Amino acid sequence: MNLDSIFNPKSVAIIGASTEVGSVGNDIVKNLTTQGYTGKVFPVNPKATKLYGLKCYPDVLSIPEKVDLAIIAVPASIVTTVMHEVAKKKVKGAIVITAGFKEAGQPERELELSEICRKNNIALIGPNCLGVINPAIKLNASFAATMPPAGGVAFLSQSGALCTAVIDYAQKLEIGFSKFVSVGNKALVDETDLIEYLANDPETKVIALYVEQLKDAGKIIHAVRKLIHGPNPKPVIAIKSGKTLAGASASASHTGALAGNDAAYEALFKQAGIIRAYSTNELFDYLRVFTHNQLPVGNRVAIITNAGGPGVLATDEVIDSGLSLAQITAASQKKLTAVLPAWANFHNPFDILGDAKAKRYEATLKIILADKQVDSVLVILTPQTMTEIETTAKAIINCKKKTKKPIVVNFMGGRLVTEAVRTMRSDQISTLQFPEQAARSLAMLTKFAGQQKQKSTKFNFTDINKKAVTKIFTDAQNRGQKALPEALALPVLAAYKFPLPKYYIVQNETEAEAAVKKINGRVALKIVSPDILHKSDIGGIALNVEPHEVKQKFHTLIKTVHKNAPTADLKGILVMEMLHVPSSAEFILGASKDPGLGAAVMVGLGGIFVEIFKDVSFGLLPLTKENAAQMVADLKANEIICGARGQKHLDGKSLVESIGRLAQLLTDFPQIKEIDINPLVILQEGQGVKALDARIILE
Amino acid sequence: MNLDSIFNPKSVAIIGASTEVGSVGNDIVKNLTTQGYTGKVFPVNPKATKLYGLKCYPDVLSIPEKVDLAIIAVPASIVTTVMHEVAKKKVKGAIVITAGFKEAGQPERELELSEICRKNNIALIGPNCLGVINPAIKLNASFAATMPPAGGVAFLSQSGALCTAVIDYAQKLEIGFSKFVSVGNKALVDETDLIEYLANDPETKVIALYVEQLKDAGKIIHAVRKLIHGPNPKPVIAIKSGKTLAGASASASHTGALAGNDAAYEALFKQAGIIRAYSTNELFDYLRVFTHNQLPVGNRVAIITNAGGPGVLATDEVIDSGLSLAQITAASQKKLTAVLPAWANFHNPFDILGDAKAKRYEATLKIILADKQVDSVLVILTPQTMTEIETTAKAIINCKKKTKKPIVVNFMGGRLVTEAVRTMRSDQISTLQFPEQAARSLAMLTKFAGQQKQKSTKFNFTDINKKAVTKIFTDAQNRGQKALPEALALPVLAAYKFPLPKYYIVQNETEAEAAVKKINGRVALKIVSPDILHKSDIGGIALNVEPHEVKQKFHTLIKTVHKNAPTADLKGILVMEMLHVPSSAEFILGASKDPGLGAAVMVGLGGIFVEIFKDVSFGLLPLTKENAAQMVADLKANEIICGARGQKHLDGKSLVESIGRLAQLLTDFPQIKEIDINPLVILQEGQGVKALDARIILE
Repeated sequence: MNLDSIFNPKSVAIIGASTEVGSVGNDIVKNLTTQGYTGKVFPVNPKATKLYGLKCYPDVLSIPEKVDLAIIAVPASIVTTVMHEVAKKKVKGAIVITAGFKEAGQPERELELSEICRKNNIALIGPNCLGVINPAIKLNASFAATMPPAGGVAFLSQSGALCTAVIDYAQKLEIGFSKFVSVGNKALVDETDLIEYLANDPETKVIALYVEQLKDAGKIIHAVRKLIHGPNPKPVIAIKSGKTLAGASASASHTGALAGNDAAYEALFKQAGIIRAYSTNELFDYLRVFTHNQLPVGNRVAIITNAGGPGVLATDEVIDSGLSLAQITAASQKKLTAVLPAWANFHNPFDILGDAKAKRYEATLKIILADKQVDSVLVILTPQTMTEIETTAKAIINCKKKTKKPIVVNFMGGRLVTEAVRTMRSDQISTLQFPEQAARSLAMLTKFAGQQKQKSTKFNFTDINKKAVTKIFTDAQNRGQKALPEALALPVLAAYKFPLPKYYIVQNETEAEAAVKKINGRVALKIVSPDILHKSDIGGIALNVEPHEVKQKFHTLIKTVHKNAPTADLKGILVMEMLHVPSSAEFILGASKDPGLGAAVMVGLGGIFVEIFKDVSFGLLPLTKENAAQMVADLKANEIICGARGQKHLDGKSLVESIGRLAQLLTDFPQIKEIDINPLVILQEGQGVKALDARIILE
Repeated sequence: MNLDSIFNPKSVAIIGASTEVGSVGNDIVKNLTTQGYTGKVFPVNPKATKLYGLKCYPDVLSIPEKVDLAIIAVPASIVTTVMHEVAKKKVKGAIVITAGFKEAGQPERELELSEICRKNNIALIGPNCLGVINPAIKLNASFAATMPPAGGVAFLSQSGALCTAVIDYAQKLEIGFSKFVSVGNKALVDETDLIEYLANDPETKVIALYVEQLKDAGKIIHAVRKLIHGPNPKPVIAIKSGKTLAGASASASHTGALAGNDAAYEALFKQAGIIRAYSTNELFDYLRVFTHNQLPVGNRVAIITNAGGPGVLATDEVIDSGLSLAQITAASQKKLTAVLPAWANFHNPFDILGDAKAKRYEATLKIILADKQVDSVLVILTPQTMTEIETTAKAIINCKKKTKKPIVVNFMGGRLVTEAVRTMRSDQISTLQFPEQAARSLAMLTKFAGQQKQKSTKFNFTDINKKAVTKIFTDAQNRGQKALPEALALPVLAAYKFPLPKYYIVQNETEAEAAVKKINGRVALKIVSPDILHKSDIGGIALNVEPHEVKQKFHTLIKTVHKNAPTADLKGILVMEMLHVPSSAEFILGASKDPGLGAAVMVGLGGIFVEIFKDVSFGLLPLTKENAAQMVADLKANEIICGARGQKHLDGKSLVESIGRLAQLLTDFPQIKEIDINPLVILQEGQGVKALDARIILE
């Protein structure tokens, strides 16, 4: 979508321009006329003649010149009427500030609005938003009072009120913005469209999102991965609220969107390569570190400090965040002896002692930065009596100019360090308040560097029988059947080449005995009925049945089910081979739908432990081989697959393939609402997996 | 320990007072003479006559008047000599600033120093420290440049350099201090002594610790619990560094103390009732909230905000931190309709909308504070164009004065909110930078209120046979045996009345068959040898042996062990009853020693899962019934005990009792270095537990 008319309009009409000072419709005109925007501004207000020295027009169609962008702040009830006029005027960008749409229980009104824009090729931001700011051209098309300084951060926010806080706080931190977008209800333009646009925006270096709900995981993953792996990669950092149920419903009450499952978002961010900030504090930390540094080539951090305690705190966080402490070369060690006192710590973290002056900091930093075994540096300073705070800051600035390695700085203190911190900030040095924050931010920068290297290999199954599944689903839909129990779900899995044990559906004892003969071993008997989804609850399963017991057990099973579910329509008994596999583990594989993101695949350790340890991981579509492998690697139960405690290795590769087959099934049949393959038994390495039971729910 | 001579000296001698400006020995004299201290100051320097207008003395004994406190900053090699003179002078408090003791590989020097002080009843702070500050009497007995403002926080720090950063940052936050102590190597006075002293210090409201290593869990738990449950309870907040191995060794290199196991510290803080901050950022947040608020009576929080997004972020954190969203009464709901616009959110979080002015904030806050279903309030403000920032701050201050309920405030922004934040801070309002921080801090305040209510019930076992264990351990020690395998460990458990299966130690096949007859069922055969601690590794175990197989299996077992461990001294075969318990679970119970804290009891789910899920919890001595119950409750595997997924309830009560019995054993026999009871089988409710195997290692 071309959003130039939104961000770089040559002319702007404000429909709903108000003469009432302090009103939204007045603020926007003020912002457009007093903050340096050089384009044309046309206030539309049928009752006024002049506003901030500009002629007012009764409606947008009366404006004699071309209008690129229309900002709409009229009452909700007339927004669509106005939008028709905007369309007629051939305006190509619109921002609807007005609230009173989906978030107020008026989804139809919102749909009508978006349809007008879609048909007329109008890029629509909002409704229910604060507006848009482009500091580079001094365009404040919002009712936020302050124009943030220009810089490299594009900020997209699903909360309008948060924007004003962010602008104000960012100014204090000297974080500049390339674009500022309050996305509102996202009736048309959403984060994905904006990310695609910002990918080619030369002013944007980092994209930051405040998100309550996102739509269409596939589109987001595609857009972000394209950006990250493109010629001009930019990090995308997101904070997602509504993690808890209470938070999600609070969020729904103010944007009208369901927040969905946090684990699905976790998967989305991982697959797309979006850096997740878990708090606003972290978000700002990451913005500072990402805007000021190039990416490190590896994860080896050197810590230089004049204080032991903060050095230890930073070390803890370095390790906890998955980085490693750099081991410097013998040559560097030797060089350090020339610049440090004998009782300093020559091992990382480098404690250069409380009496370290600027020269000692600079000499150490130079040696460490030059060391080929160091990928990034964290400098800590506490204000001791003899500490040369400002001079040390300048030394760091000088060193930073001569290196490509990231440097993150923590001058720990208050008033004493304020001036030095300000100097460093305005000279492109990332300074953080506390050592832990500095370490964590550096870890995220490193993580992003790793993201860039991640490959995307598609699964490619040539052995699947899509037609067979289409028929099963069509037949079920024709019958009005949504829940497909085992007897219908297993053929679906078979068509997608999930390995299954031998099984037969039989109608009587004689057929059962014939089936057992073919299986030639112990069997499981399970009731087949479209009315019974949870067979074990009503005694519809008999396990470990010996061949000679089949007749009697068949009889008992039918009797029990008749008693416990007298109205159920019995379609027979499923006779299934029992597996005899000493080294194996029961996993669970499944999928459900997130209201915004779409189908989410889940894998985890099965049995009682899935509920107790909740050791599951999620993946979204489209799912690459790397994603599926990562899902398995993320499980603690992966240790079982890798042969925990001297046990045999299990067939993890086949588990990964099964995840891929399930993802393929979900891609091919979006009508699947839920699917459970439980248990999926993972056999020894090289022996594959077996799906023992399954159920499917269609939309 | 009476530390009055340290904190409230009428006269101070500085031994090692230096004429060299910028040196530590000079800074201390300057701090004592220029920052308002009104006591007598005696610089000791044999080479100088005057310093900062004061007469210098050649040594402490030459001072003609009584000296309460001696600050020592002479070279490490002569510190003990000086301390002898200090003792002779009958000085009762000493601060040794000098480094070069345990942390520099000189533990003997440190021991000698502490011995002199102990014998002469001198309270010793240090060595290797920054000193002590008591702002109330303007005593800056340290080389920190700045005197922090007086206030309610006592700060004890194991890192000297951290102190200067804390003082500087705290000033910015308007946090005041009652005492400031750099504890250094803690050769004599440690955190426990200081906590006991500060318990009775009227100026101290909150005690904060920066800790790398602590000693003697029992002493700490006793001191802190006494403080919390005493007539004048004060919260103790700690940040512990050296969580990771790399962090721990970095910490060791600068204080010479081993950091120990972080899980043991987690247990210590929980049992003692110490609030743990996981970062310096959190520490400061908690200090702000604890110093300004009374304790809430419950965990129901109301959030008032003019911005949806931050309200959602706060809600997430409220729930994640274990608090709940208050549901206000119908009466309050009705009152709210009179003061809020119709489209505000009348449910918690209360979104009073972006155009909320001070009056709306105040009216809402009053209604919410008066609601009996609200225990604490979180107020969020973002600076919208129409927001009355300063007036709202004043409204909050007014409301706070009329309520006992905690109020935590987040004015989210930068320059626009600076003045209002400053006003609130100086008027005893806790303001935090971000909504999540505000919510988390409130959660900690609530958690502390809960801590105060926690009971301490001692285990009281009257059925244990201490003598029998004494004999087993004495015999082993006489033999020079440190590792006690099953055959020696089980009798120890039997003496402490752990339920055991029937077992017999036999020497030959005939005795084995006789044992099986008495057991009357399947048995396990296990090799008995002082040389073999891990029996299964060398094939020394046979399980599920049928009575008729005993002879043959006995023979095979002996043969296998002879082959795999030809030199092992075989003392026979242990014949043990096999349990037949369908509903049961294998747990592991054990203990090891933390280098600083002492014996740590561990409980967890046994088998392969202990390693994969690391679902274990720890407890320290002395261990109350409540602590043991909490250890079990903290396990995810507790769900198995509570009957996960329709299974039978297991005997959790007996597991708790077993933890108590193990704690008693460890208390009675401190020579136990390690003990493992694995597996400890938990039977169905009412049927107890069974210890199937054990081993003990003595010091």
